[in-house]
Amino acid sequence: MENGSFALCILFLELALCWAYAMFVDYTGESIGIVVDNDLDRVRGTHARKHLSSIYYYMFQDVHLTVVIGFGFLATFLKRYGYSSIVPNLLVVAITLQWATLCQGFFQMQRGKIHVSITNLVHADFATLAVLISFGTILDLTTPIQLIIMALCEVVCFATNEYISLDILQISDVGVSMLVHVFAAYFGLTVSCVLRNNRPERESVSITLPTSDLFAVIGTMFLWLFWPTLNASLAQGDAQHRAVINTYYSLAASSVVTLAICLSSLLDKKPFIMVHIQNSALAGGVAIGTVADMMIYPFGAIIVGSFAGLVSVIGVPEMNRKFGIRDPNGVHNLHGLPGLISALVGAIAAVFATEKNYNYTLYRLFPARTPMVKTPDYWNLEHHVGNVSPGLARSALSQGAYQIAALGTTLAFAVFGGLFTGLVLRLPLFKQKRRDNFINDEA
Amino acid sequence: MENGSFALCILFLELALCWAYAMFVDYTGESIGIVVDNDLDRVRGTHARKHLSSIYYYMFQDVHLTVVIGFGFLATFLKRYGYSSIVPNLLVVAITLQWATLCQGFFQMQRGKIHVSITNLVHADFATLAVLISFGTILDLTTPIQLIIMALCEVVCFATNEYISLDILQISDVGVSMLVHVFAAYFGLTVSCVLRNNRPERESVSITLPTSDLFAVIGTMFLWLFWPTLNASLAQGDAQHRAVINTYYSLAASSVVTLAICLSSLLDKKPFIMVHIQNSALAGGVAIGTVADMMIYPFGAIIVGSFAGLVSVIGVPEMNRKFGIRDPNGVHNLHGLPGLISALVGAIAAVFATEKNYNYTLYRLFPARTPMVKTPDYWNLEHHVGNVSPGLARSALSQGAYQIAALGTTLAFAVFGGLFTGLVLRLPLFKQKRRDNFINDEA
Amino acid sequence: MENGSFALCILFLELALCWAYAMFVDYTGESIGIVVDNDLDRVRGTHARKHLSSIYYYMFQDVHLTVVIGFGFLATFLKRYGYSSIVPNLLVVAITLQWATLCQGFFQMQRGKIHVSITNLVHADFATLAVLISFGTILDLTTPIQLIIMALCEVVCFATNEYISLDILQISDVGVSMLVHVFAAYFGLTVSCVLRNNRPERESVSITLPTSDLFAVIGTMFLWLFWPTLNASLAQGDAQHRAVINTYYSLAASSVVTLAICLSSLLDKKPFIMVHIQNSALAGGVAIGTVADMMIYPFGAIIVGSFAGLVSVIGVPEMNRKFGIRDPNGVHNLHGLPGLISALVGAIAAVFATEKNYNYTLYRLFPARTPMVKTPDYWNLEHHVGNVSPGLARSALSQGAYQIAALGTTLAFAVFGGLFTGLVLRLPLFKQKRRDNFINDEA
Repeated sequence: MENGSFALCILFLELALCWAYAMFVDYTGESIGIVVDNDLDRVRGTHARKHLSSIYYYMFQDVHLTVVIGFGFLATFLKRYGYSSIVPNLLVVAITLQWATLCQGFFQMQRGKIHVSITNLVHADFATLAVLISFGTILDLTTPIQLIIMALCEVVCFATNEYISLDILQISDVGVSMLVHVFAAYFGLTVSCVLRNNRPERESVSITLPTSDLFAVIGTMFLWLFWPTLNASLAQGDAQHRAVINTYYSLAASSVVTLAICLSSLLDKKPFIMVHIQNSALAGGVAIGTVADMMIYPFGAIIVGSFAGLVSVIGVPEMNRKFGIRDPNGVHNLHGLPGLISALVGAIAAVFATEKNYNYTLYRLFPARTPMVKTPDYWNLEHHVGNVSPGLARSALSQGAYQIAALGTTLAFAVFGGLFTGLVLRLPLFKQKRRDNFINDEA
Repeated sequence: MENGSFALCILFLELALCWAYAMFVDYTGESIGIVVDNDLDRVRGTHARKHLSSIYYYMFQDVHLTVVIGFGFLATFLKRYGYSSIVPNLLVVAITLQWATLCQGFFQMQRGKIHVSITNLVHADFATLAVLISFGTILDLTTPIQLIIMALCEVVCFATNEYISLDILQISDVGVSMLVHVFAAYFGLTVSCVLRNNRPERESVSITLPTSDLFAVIGTMFLWLFWPTLNASLAQGDAQHRAVINTYYSLAASSVVTLAICLSSLLDKKPFIMVHIQNSALAGGVAIGTVADMMIYPFGAIIVGSFAGLVSVIGVPEMNRKFGIRDPNGVHNLHGLPGLISALVGAIAAVFATEKNYNYTLYRLFPARTPMVKTPDYWNLEHHVGNVSPGLARSALSQGAYQIAALGTTLAFAVFGGLFTGLVLRLPLFKQKRRDNFINDEA
Repeated sequence: MENGSFALCILFLELALCWAYAMFVDYTGESIGIVVDNDLDRVRGTHARKHLSSIYYYMFQDVHLTVVIGFGFLATFLKRYGYSSIVPNLLVVAITLQWATLCQGFFQMQRGKIHVSITNLVHADFATLAVLISFGTILDLTTPIQLIIMALCEVVCFATNEYISLDILQISDVGVSMLVHVFAAYFGLTVSCVLRNNRPERESVSITLPTSDLFAVIGTMFLWLFWPTLNASLAQGDAQHRAVINTYYSLAASSVVTLAICLSSLLDKKPFIMVHIQNSALAGGVAIGTVADMMIYPFGAIIVGSFAGLVSVIGVPEMNRKFGIRDPNGVHNLHGLPGLISALVGAIAAVFATEKNYNYTLYRLFPARTPMVKTPDYWNLEHHVGNVSPGLARSALSQGAYQIAALGTTLAFAVFGGLFTGLVLRLPLFKQKRRDNFINDEA
């Protein structure tokens, strides 16, 4: 593809997005002129609730920052240095944010309109996170146009899977370990597999300047610190509180385990790959994701974190060698396997969740477990907590089964979506001057 | 000026500031000992409102961070590397914050006292932002003492213009595109013009180490991510909500347009200047500023952002060449022209703002449009929303005219203030050893 | 100690922590399933209070970020570059966070359980801050195992001193200048003294690459910007408001004074040590700590900041030379002396605190000054502000005396704790391959 036509394509895409927004996207009731409490006036009668944006704004800002800078950093700076990866990455982020709003909104349309509020921006950020995670597997293989095509395809698969898991299967995945991390890791690894088969294996030259390594380390610390936000941003009240606490301890534990192993091996001159160590230190954050708001107690969080760190630092490299998985940026040991652990632990915790432990917030975590309308259970619940949206009266065991089912669906979407996307990317249409030359041009 | 006397001057300035604070500055009622709800106690009777600081604190922290690190970075690290620009910049920031509180407070004095609350700190940060933007135009020309004199003069002009625009003309400029970006850009360009005429044109040697370039790119991403905060920080409730959403999409659109053009030109080996590309990607944030909280809908934000990106990346370099504007840090294409676009779009949006679209929040966005006291319109409004501060019953059209008038005032203050400041800086009194030598001293 | 056994030790420590958490740590009532207002539902009857996590979360995130990245940076990047300091530091942080929860919780146990909420995480972060400050004094001397032993000992001393000062002596120290900064600085300097006596004085080679210097400068700016959060995070309502405002002006003043002196000396080619200048610019934040929420007015904050800056940049280097204190990272001039200033100013401000100035919030700042139960004063107070926890009816003067007493206790704990820790670290058990070799291994 010529470069002039590449730019034209992008501009045309932006035009199409603009048209779609004009047709389908509107503000929510929250963002149009309804007089709401501005927090400064005395709370008055019917206006006695806080505005949505003042609740979610700070969460949104933290998530936004973490996704783009944190993951942008880690994914980009390690292998390639400087503009050559930043410019296409920011371009893809900017397209993905707009595209994700449309794809995710499609499933929530009301009277032909997508009503955008600040929560849509948070969800679009999570879709972008999935795309950035997948990029880690193929950044050394692809041209900018391929990155964009992949992002467009991935977001469609992602939004569909998200809708099926959350709205149809009604599972709980507060830290999106399944919906984002597992999905993105295996989607990316599948695409990478398809693309690598296509071309002769060449040693991907990784330019690791000291500075870019340093940025990667800082990016890791940055993610380490913001991970409680990532896991808690979609929860509320006491569930959010637990999500912060559990993530905090899980990360601390996985870091202790990972860094102890790494330090001792460094001292013994057996070199570990630094990027794998960084990723393993973060594995606790992914592994606690699905269960972050569940009643696993701080010691449970420590156990999950330690186990994930151990598996990630020792198990995954072994596994990659055995199955011939090429994963230069450590996507498998940060997102893939810890995500699987999280999904399984989540299913187990869901089986043991009772009204006795969780009190009535059980029904906020697992809405499908709410009693069906006009049953004695329902009357009883309504008597205690006021008006309740009736649910499916799902049992604890079947909630666990649904959690596993959602894992299966996610893996299926990841693998088949990745296969399809990989084949699309191999179309001769998307050949472009290689990034390697592109880098040389600059130098 | 000798260096010893330079230090003495600064210390004397600090002493004067301290005296002025002792004379004129007091806490607000919010920050003295009135027992207010601490959010932990049960809400009780008359204390049922949140404390001001818990509302504005997080906004303040984000704005503070963005202004100093974000703009400090971009302005400093590009051309000059390291301490030689950081030390004077931080010095100027520290002086400006204190000076701006006094200048802005002067217009809001009550009984001879300036009552300082956290919102004053946010406003002082915006004044500092204006100073840092202007610095971008003259950083290669000036000595530390000149920077300080310029900051002192600029803040006076800025605070006066702000008072005239907001309190007398009663215009709406939530993202301060007019009051900060347009003002600061043309103030700086005028000063730069005056100073450059004074001395023989020499090629300003720009030391762009790879590391400092990298920092500039990260600074850009940082600003890109925090821009929704910058535009939303002065709004409330649903207006804040719209400000976040509009800025988000406007930035995404301007980045797509700019980076597509840049990528294609990079691949064609026509080199763009990287700093201009970075600035153009951010142009959407400035261009949406004035209208960020207005009802322009996401597609409107995308159109504004795309247009600003296009003008900024293609139009401004052309324009600078034509009019002989020297702008090594791209202040004109990030702040100047996009700010003008924003002011004009704001005037148009103000003309089309009706009570039908905005509901009663119309009168919060445009207080001058509130009906005059004791008219039938006023009784009607009060009937619907409770106690209302009466306004000027301004029509939509005349509100639009006032927006344009404020743009005129702002440009006048910028150009004449810049001219005056430039002439002051040329006084032989402020000659000092040049920064170039200063850099060599360190090396 | 062998490296294999080092890793085993750490893993065993993690196991022990996990056991202790399983035995003693539980969620608070706030984080278990009590149905609380999720801020989105209409406020209903008895549930009309905000959830704890939504109040403290953002504060926690900012403190977490500042402590680990901000202080991690400054302490580590200056002297040693890259992984060799980051890996052990992150390991120690991860252990300290878990250990501090236990140590601090031990004094607050209820029925044999430590009830963990988000405020515990903030307090654990402050304990970690103390450990990171102390590291600055000995980073060039110690092996990873010694760092860990020191962190474990220091946290025990820290938690005990914190309990004595806050719960027994009932002093006010909102910005933890005494409890963290003074304690950590003199603890670290004592340990460093004990360790240095043990070995022949050799020139510690400080590798200051331009990049790591740059990171240090950015770290300084980062701390400068987040310091209002550090000082305000433990306050509420109007006290929090004052803490932000006072810290803002104090930092600005100390920076102006410090940088003016530094600029003039740079221009005169008398070289200052950059790290000392950076630290002095921040001294205003430490010096205002204890009094940050007291009624000292903005001009008082400016005076305190200026004085601290002056003492820190001129006095401390002189003092270190005189008393032979070795302090390569400037811990004494950032944390030690400014902390002492803060404690003394705090005692003075406490003496002048009256109900006339502070209104009823006086009793929130100084709970011990609340009247004793069932006295006429108590009835009077309860009449005005509702239910009150009775206090000790301490006078203003004796509150001042208690503030001084707490300073004494803190210094005693710091010096004797440091002595004990230093002697423990000299045990041959903790000999390990030196960090210097460790660095060479990597190169």
